[in-house]
Amino acid sequence: MTRQIAVINAGSSSIKFAVFDDNPEQSLRFRGQVEKIGVGPTLTVEGPDGETLVEKEWAASDLTHKSATKVILETAIALLDGEAVEGIGHRVVHGGMKFAGPTLVTKEVLASLAELNPLAPLHQPHNLSPIETIMAEAPHIPQVACFDTAFHQTQPHLSSAFAIPRELSDAGVRRYGFHGLSYEYVSGKLREVAPELADKKIIIAHLGNGASLCALEHGKSVATTMGFTAVEGLMMGTRCGSIDPGVLIYLMDEKGLDARGLEDLVYKKSGLLGVSGISSDMRTLRESSDPRAREAIDLFVYRIVREIGSLAAALGGIDGIVFTGGIGQRDTRTRREVIAGCGWLGAVLDEQANASGSERIDARSSKLPVWVLPTDEERVIARHAAQLTSRSSESTVARMDAQMPPVG
Amino acid sequence: MTRQIAVINAGSSSIKFAVFDDNPEQSLRFRGQVEKIGVGPTLTVEGPDGETLVEKEWAASDLTHKSATKVILETAIALLDGEAVEGIGHRVVHGGMKFAGPTLVTKEVLASLAELNPLAPLHQPHNLSPIETIMAEAPHIPQVACFDTAFHQTQPHLSSAFAIPRELSDAGVRRYGFHGLSYEYVSGKLREVAPELADKKIIIAHLGNGASLCALEHGKSVATTMGFTAVEGLMMGTRCGSIDPGVLIYLMDEKGLDARGLEDLVYKKSGLLGVSGISSDMRTLRESSDPRAREAIDLFVYRIVREIGSLAAALGGIDGIVFTGGIGQRDTRTRREVIAGCGWLGAVLDEQANASGSERIDARSSKLPVWVLPTDEERVIARHAAQLTSRSSESTVARMDAQMPPVG
Repeated sequence: MTRQIAVINAGSSSIKFAVFDDNPEQSLRFRGQVEKIGVGPTLTVEGPDGETLVEKEWAASDLTHKSATKVILETAIALLDGEAVEGIGHRVVHGGMKFAGPTLVTKEVLASLAELNPLAPLHQPHNLSPIETIMAEAPHIPQVACFDTAFHQTQPHLSSAFAIPRELSDAGVRRYGFHGLSYEYVSGKLREVAPELADKKIIIAHLGNGASLCALEHGKSVATTMGFTAVEGLMMGTRCGSIDPGVLIYLMDEKGLDARGLEDLVYKKSGLLGVSGISSDMRTLRESSDPRAREAIDLFVYRIVREIGSLAAALGGIDGIVFTGGIGQRDTRTRREVIAGCGWLGAVLDEQANASGSERIDARSSKLPVWVLPTDEERVIARHAAQLTSRSSESTVARMDAQMPPVG
Repeated sequence: MTRQIAVINAGSSSIKFAVFDDNPEQSLRFRGQVEKIGVGPTLTVEGPDGETLVEKEWAASDLTHKSATKVILETAIALLDGEAVEGIGHRVVHGGMKFAGPTLVTKEVLASLAELNPLAPLHQPHNLSPIETIMAEAPHIPQVACFDTAFHQTQPHLSSAFAIPRELSDAGVRRYGFHGLSYEYVSGKLREVAPELADKKIIIAHLGNGASLCALEHGKSVATTMGFTAVEGLMMGTRCGSIDPGVLIYLMDEKGLDARGLEDLVYKKSGLLGVSGISSDMRTLRESSDPRAREAIDLFVYRIVREIGSLAAALGGIDGIVFTGGIGQRDTRTRREVIAGCGWLGAVLDEQANASGSERIDARSSKLPVWVLPTDEERVIARHAAQLTSRSSESTVARMDAQMPPVG
């Protein structure tokens, strides 16, 4: 019987999870999510072929983040029907300066990670919450934290440095970069499908509700658009991306905004939502005939094209582009518009390949290969969790169903 | 007898001035500056060949901004020996959304310009102070405000828009861009020395204590690195340039910084000064053997190279680069390092031409022409002031020495 590795990816209003067989293929057993926590929680679980295995819903007050974690464990136990989960991997957005790779979680590690909450106030506490819950409820299961920042540790100092007083830089105020688990997965996938390209100068565009670009050479991060927090860089669903710091000071002086007001503005009220005044969802905007929707999309694309230029400069050239993430994988028009803006770099789209969902979408005349590769952050996390727990935890593995209390 | 046009360029601790003959060549009569206001004020005036005409100094408390303006007028009157100044042009950093070009100053205009103080708190009030003084002391002399923002009014909406709620954008929170008088002068100069290049896709690098880049096509601004304020974009002498907005929020929460603290940090303690911990002056850093000086310079150059990539994307290609500003004109090593970083765009430096102070410094093998063209903002201001005052003020012109009170 192979080991089972669980993955938890907990956000502010949803917790995604998955269980993989720890066989060489890392076969997916099932994946699911609790969504709309605090509003109208629902649980859905699908099997490896997308078949629905579980569907449940609760009243808003009946499920908290903490009890949602227990529900997930209970559900997983029932679905595994006696097979043991022997390791749990978690997505943790910020590893700070200390954590350069996946790390087995101890109480000390958890305390260090909680110290990073101010660096990602809207993400980090939610990421850590299920780790704490499981540590309390099932302390025998080894847990592994996998960081969105870790992939970018290879960035040269000049990419990550802000031009601020060096005391602040030395204290950790620098560009960490995020979406690292996605970049790790996609760059690995690129090595499978296009090994001749994998070591060259590549820009991966992870475009989703959160969006960033990563410049890679030899498969390693050289520069990325997100910085100290996940708000810098590209325009996103509700985040503004890069903005003149003078705007924040102006809004403090003239509109009386404090830190929470600024945070709310740049994280939640800007981006596609703020510019369109309609929605943060690209699908909704694409369907709208409102000129404000068009303006929001145009700005989203324009900012990507500008940042591709900046990252090409970081690389000293560009040999290929890869799209991933919800928008990158599914929105053919965003891909077409971005590639049109990269014509000066030699990129030409094969319209039909792009429209038909091909993996490779550049035209024969293109100087740059352009790929679309679906990301799978959970699989990367599972891989790391399997590696770290097989090395370190042989003696502590136990059946997780033995000790789990019931959840109401 | 030709008309005399005076120019005043007033900053926070210095006021530069110049007087030109309003003949077709706009011959310089003299130029000078009051420096170190508030510290140990000095006045120097030079003739057209650099010969010293006046040198004076005061105790710190004996010369304010206001009395410095009067000293300048008195000095100019004495040097002109009876010839009349028939118009005064002023550099005004911010024209906001309202002022798209040079404007004859009335009381109403001055009031509108003062409303823009919050958009450039460290510059705008100083720019307006001499206009007010002269309006009170010599109301018969027509004054013209020339804006650093005006040249960028041709930017497409996508270049200037932030991805913030549209109410804020509509209220004027957008990228205005600065150094417009310099870009206007240099692009005009480029048309003289390289007319075949002047309408192509050009990036002008204005590198001084303040630094920005401008992307031009057909001689018009398409995009620029400075934004809502003069702190966005490149790293500068003491300004940080672009920075994750999350850093500001973090510093408010964790270090208790308020608006003034943040302003002080991003405008005055960052940039070359903050990173090196030594000096904001490129010459000092070039002479230093301290590795922190080297790090500051490297970051300064790196940020320029990255932003050139971003602006090339805005242009959809690049056909030439022009250096100007104190560092751009004089620091051969900064030019060499920037061009080395633009090798991927086809730029190759002619080392000897660069070292010997030639106007054109690209090698034969370069795909991009690279020029060094000294800027002259005062001359642009004089040109605009001459045009606007000759059209509008024939009847109001009077001798300015007739009514000037003495200054102590």
